[in-house]
Amino acid sequence: MARVVKLAVIPGDGIGPEVIAEAEKVLDAATAGSDVVFDKTRFSLGAARYLETGDTLTDEDLDAIKAHDAILLGAVGGVPGDPRLRDANIERGLLLRLRFELDHYVNLRPSKLYRGQPGPLADPGEVDFVVVREGTEGPYVGNGGSIRRGTPHEVANETSVNTAYGVERVVRYAFELAQRRRGRLTLVHKTNVLVNAGSLWQRVVHEVGIGYPEVAVDYLHVDAATIFLVTNPGRFDVIVTDNLFGDILTDLAGAVTGGIGLAASGNINPDGAFPSMFEPVHGSAPDIAGTQKADPTAAIGSIALLLDHLGLREEADRVTRAIEEDIDERHGSSHPAPARSTTEIGDAIAVRLQA
Amino acid sequence: MARVVKLAVIPGDGIGPEVIAEAEKVLDAATAGSDVVFDKTRFSLGAARYLETGDTLTDEDLDAIKAHDAILLGAVGGVPGDPRLRDANIERGLLLRLRFELDHYVNLRPSKLYRGQPGPLADPGEVDFVVVREGTEGPYVGNGGSIRRGTPHEVANETSVNTAYGVERVVRYAFELAQRRRGRLTLVHKTNVLVNAGSLWQRVVHEVGIGYPEVAVDYLHVDAATIFLVTNPGRFDVIVTDNLFGDILTDLAGAVTGGIGLAASGNINPDGAFPSMFEPVHGSAPDIAGTQKADPTAAIGSIALLLDHLGLREEADRVTRAIEEDIDERHGSSHPAPARSTTEIGDAIAVRLQA
Ligand SMILES: CC(C)[C@H](C(=O)O)[C@@H](O)C(=O)O
Ligand SMILES: CC(C)[C@H](C(=O)O)[C@@H](O)C(=O)O
Repeated sequence: MARVVKLAVIPGDGIGPEVIAEAEKVLDAATAGSDVVFDKTRFSLGAARYLETGDTLTDEDLDAIKAHDAILLGAVGGVPGDPRLRDANIERGLLLRLRFELDHYVNLRPSKLYRGQPGPLADPGEVDFVVVREGTEGPYVGNGGSIRRGTPHEVANETSVNTAYGVERVVRYAFELAQRRRGRLTLVHKTNVLVNAGSLWQRVVHEVGIGYPEVAVDYLHVDAATIFLVTNPGRFDVIVTDNLFGDILTDLAGAVTGGIGLAASGNINPDGAFPSMFEPVHGSAPDIAGTQKADPTAAIGSIALLLDHLGLREEADRVTRAIEEDIDERHGSSHPAPARSTTEIGDAIAVRLQA
Repeated sequence: MARVVKLAVIPGDGIGPEVIAEAEKVLDAATAGSDVVFDKTRFSLGAARYLETGDTLTDEDLDAIKAHDAILLGAVGGVPGDPRLRDANIERGLLLRLRFELDHYVNLRPSKLYRGQPGPLADPGEVDFVVVREGTEGPYVGNGGSIRRGTPHEVANETSVNTAYGVERVVRYAFELAQRRRGRLTLVHKTNVLVNAGSLWQRVVHEVGIGYPEVAVDYLHVDAATIFLVTNPGRFDVIVTDNLFGDILTDLAGAVTGGIGLAASGNINPDGAFPSMFEPVHGSAPDIAGTQKADPTAAIGSIALLLDHLGLREEADRVTRAIEEDIDERHGSSHPAPARSTTEIGDAIAVRLQA
């Protein structure tokens, strides 16, 4: 009997629908003939929906999404500066709300420099690491406020909240991952300035680490970590860090490994209490929406993460290999490959899976 | 009659004394024969002093420093992991305390890729920008705490405090600077997540900007800014940002422009109520202390910023030119220059000023 996976699909705004179309194409190709069937529900969410109905994410939306096994998300967010969106915060109200309500405490962001892939670094060496970004705490919690707003005496605060419970579970995940990979874990924080949060992270890493004697642990301040990401990215295996530092480091890591058009991510609830969500790291890029200029590779890479999360390792590996081969071919010849459309890239990767 | 400038010199720990010796040498060379006399007081502060006396920065130290016209600082901080320093936080107790008590609200960090200077980027283009980092607010204020410390129920908070007063004055400084430079100002923040602080920064930039119609303003989220720093650093002229984002961006900027061995900085109190402080961006690097391996160029560049701050423009320009010529010569020939010691680099730059 076929295994049915209920997949919520949120194409979103801008280039979201275009890259998700290719991701779905690859998902179909990767699972054709297997005994897994994806039962998909499409959710129209994002800036477009907000402009139409005034809703960002209703409780009904959330309940419906929760009834799925996993989520595939494109990108959300309208045109920057659109006055009709002034009072909306699609990022907080939709994307972050999903991450928080669905307890996506592991935001998993692999960075790999594929063979032949050009990037900004002159001499990157081998780059293959994963950032385990905490997803439900830190400066992202929305515990801020302001007084005397709009006056010369305004004070605006933002509070980063960090709990032993929240830090411990993501640190443990990172150790498990490091143990399965090259056995190296780097904690990134700013312990010399953010002394309370920093001390908690450092103590938890120390304590959890006792159970993983084979994993070598080191520590970097976030400022120093950005230096190493451009001077010696090969030194990293698994990075574990808080929500905000993880946000910053993964965009930089994406750039270093050839651009965020290639960077996939998973918002994981490892306990399985809620569906995990897979999305490219990039945003909705409304300026190139509809032009077929977006690279769907990041969205397709998120399919590999989704399949892996579902335990479909072989299918996941086949998607990853197809991506690698495609990238290799893009850059393999000494002549630059002609620019391909979003659809052409998706087709090329899907075809490799049918072979 | 000679103008006397009272200069507090804090060599500090690790490589601090070595690079400060070269900086002083260059200061002497640059002002020899001029009518400015530097009346120097040395302050023994840092990890070494703490280990000897238990003091980080006493009120008496602070009062004595305040009686000076400017401060030259090397680097402070002991050997990481030294158990005797476990209860000390030299960074917070000394460096940050100086920045806060002396109201250094502008942390000025220029980044320039000198001709011929190798760096990690394959194709950096022309890079010449200044980060104006806020120095007295944000997540650096030390308004955090924890409860149930050491238990599974620990909660550790950090609060970022941002005021209209504090943001307005640094933003105004940045606009003035942008107007004197290429007329381009980029605000970096994370307004879609840190909505209260972000909104304040954005409104202040908008309002202050009305008075500077010739300055073109744009905005980047901090994550996107790190991408541009490695893919198109030439797009930046002046960046204005908060204390933590400024910390992160300037280390990355230092790496991009050839390493933090070259990155100078000024902690400025533009009102002149307190002495401003000039220091290399790098730390005390205890691992190479005493080996003459440290590059004193960042400390010497801080002398140029000091001279400029004191209104000694011509002397400042001469130091900058001497640095540029020295860097040019390091990399000018097709054969790599032999590695020079800290003293040799200082001598070479000082000699150019005597010529
Ligand atoms: C859109 C934004 C809220 C989001 C974040 O900051 O997490 C994005 O930058 C990301 O990295 O997924
Ligand atoms: C040492 C540390 C407190 C300091 C900072 O975070 O500001 C340093 O990184 C810097 O950039 O000057």
